[in-house]
Amino acid sequence: MFAVKATLRSHPGRPSHPDAMGRCIEACFTCAGTSTACADACLSERDVGDLLTCIRHNLDCAAICTATGSVVARAKAGARRQVMESQLNVCIAACRACGDECRRHAHTHAHCKVCGDACEACATACTEMLAALRAVV
Amino acid sequence: MFAVKATLRSHPGRPSHPDAMGRCIEACFTCAGTSTACADACLSERDVGDLLTCIRHNLDCAAICTATGSVVARAKAGARRQVMESQLNVCIAACRACGDECRRHAHTHAHCKVCGDACEACATACTEMLAALRAVV
Amino acid sequence: MFAVKATLRSHPGRPSHPDAMGRCIEACFTCAGTSTACADACLSERDVGDLLTCIRHNLDCAAICTATGSVVARAKAGARRQVMESQLNVCIAACRACGDECRRHAHTHAHCKVCGDACEACATACTEMLAALRAVV
Amino acid sequence: MFAVKATLRSHPGRPSHPDAMGRCIEACFTCAGTSTACADACLSERDVGDLLTCIRHNLDCAAICTATGSVVARAKAGARRQVMESQLNVCIAACRACGDECRRHAHTHAHCKVCGDACEACATACTEMLAALRAVV
Repeated sequence: MFAVKATLRSHPGRPSHPDAMGRCIEACFTCAGTSTACADACLSERDVGDLLTCIRHNLDCAAICTATGSVVARAKAGARRQVMESQLNVCIAACRACGDECRRHAHTHAHCKVCGDACEACATACTEMLAALRAVV
Repeated sequence: MFAVKATLRSHPGRPSHPDAMGRCIEACFTCAGTSTACADACLSERDVGDLLTCIRHNLDCAAICTATGSVVARAKAGARRQVMESQLNVCIAACRACGDECRRHAHTHAHCKVCGDACEACATACTEMLAALRAVV
Repeated sequence: MFAVKATLRSHPGRPSHPDAMGRCIEACFTCAGTSTACADACLSERDVGDLLTCIRHNLDCAAICTATGSVVARAKAGARRQVMESQLNVCIAACRACGDECRRHAHTHAHCKVCGDACEACATACTEMLAALRAVV
Repeated sequence: MFAVKATLRSHPGRPSHPDAMGRCIEACFTCAGTSTACADACLSERDVGDLLTCIRHNLDCAAICTATGSVVARAKAGARRQVMESQLNVCIAACRACGDECRRHAHTHAHCKVCGDACEACATACTEMLAALRAVV
């Protein structure tokens, strides 16, 4: 994901916080991939019946992280900046909800532990992106 | 999109508002397709330099509508219901922001007029989905 | 989805087959929504253990249909036209594979019957889009 | 993206090639993020009129890479394996087409150089995933 940051550094709009943006986009797409893989691992477990809520959280999280990563990758001003901030907040909530559920299964399913960590990392990166945005005003 | 509603009517979780859900999912995916097509039409216009904000709104709207349609299609309870409600609110904001920008170009570009209408229809369907959710408690 | 066709009719690139394009984009996004809803309905069934292959087909189909609808919505020439044709062929294959699996469960699960029909409709619309492209040369 | 590989290593289906899978999913999502950012950087360039083909390649590439990463993350057998192989081949073609166009602008736009490299890395990772699949039979 070095590539995303390098792309942002040569963006002619000169984003004021390319590293926070790059880390946020990276974390969103990493979490999307990890949640999708965790959903499939859960589907393959013998106790799939106990993991249905986890699978739904995983799929929600993957969809929301993909959209958020895409929105953050575009230069923002005016009304679109407000939409991005709101989308970042939903992404934080979706990652926390998914991470909370994943951690309930972390002792028996290592993929849920890994996914919970990726969710937490994504929530942190989105929070730092919001802070960077607000520092600039 | 008759198909989505028919699918929901035979969902074993018996969603309490399959028609509002079906209309919402339909409107989200319709708006995603229309916004993607409008972005490309804008890219093809001679005055593309005046349409850059519109293109970015279109792409944001398409990403957010796709995620929202996917999230709404899953049965909700607990923490996931809150995430869905927040995502619906972001989708309403993204559709309104995109529609406002599209309408600025509606007199010269018919595709922007059509897209603005699809955005408004999606914002309405998401608003009605939220109302249906709250009526059930 | 009237909106997609209307958008294409005012596209300044004057696509030579706006109706086939519009129907194809509509069918792709309809099938994405229906497959996502069918995956969730399958997850809610008591015999979820017998539906794991169906759920995976549904999720593959939703991802591929969303990408295909997006690719078809952009004007095509040169190398991008070849990519679109290949993507349409994969979408046809994914829809047929998902539809075949859905039909195996259609007698017990109405949502699988509906989804199988949406998959077939999408495969047909993608096939007609390919034929329209080839007629133009 | 360490997270994706770690998730796959604890997948109960014991994928026979978790590292090739992990690298492929990582490369697909990295390329999706990079292409989305490159499209926006191109939109911001003064010579946007010369970059329209590049923008469309970027958007196609992002849509196709996202779908491919999602499909590869699911365990495969039977008809779904064929769909995955076909989708991987389209992803290779889309990445090469996007990379070729990006390299045409690499001397003037650093983001296009970076994106061309991410496209090449994704095409390579998809090719290695296909080779790993075929080695297993």
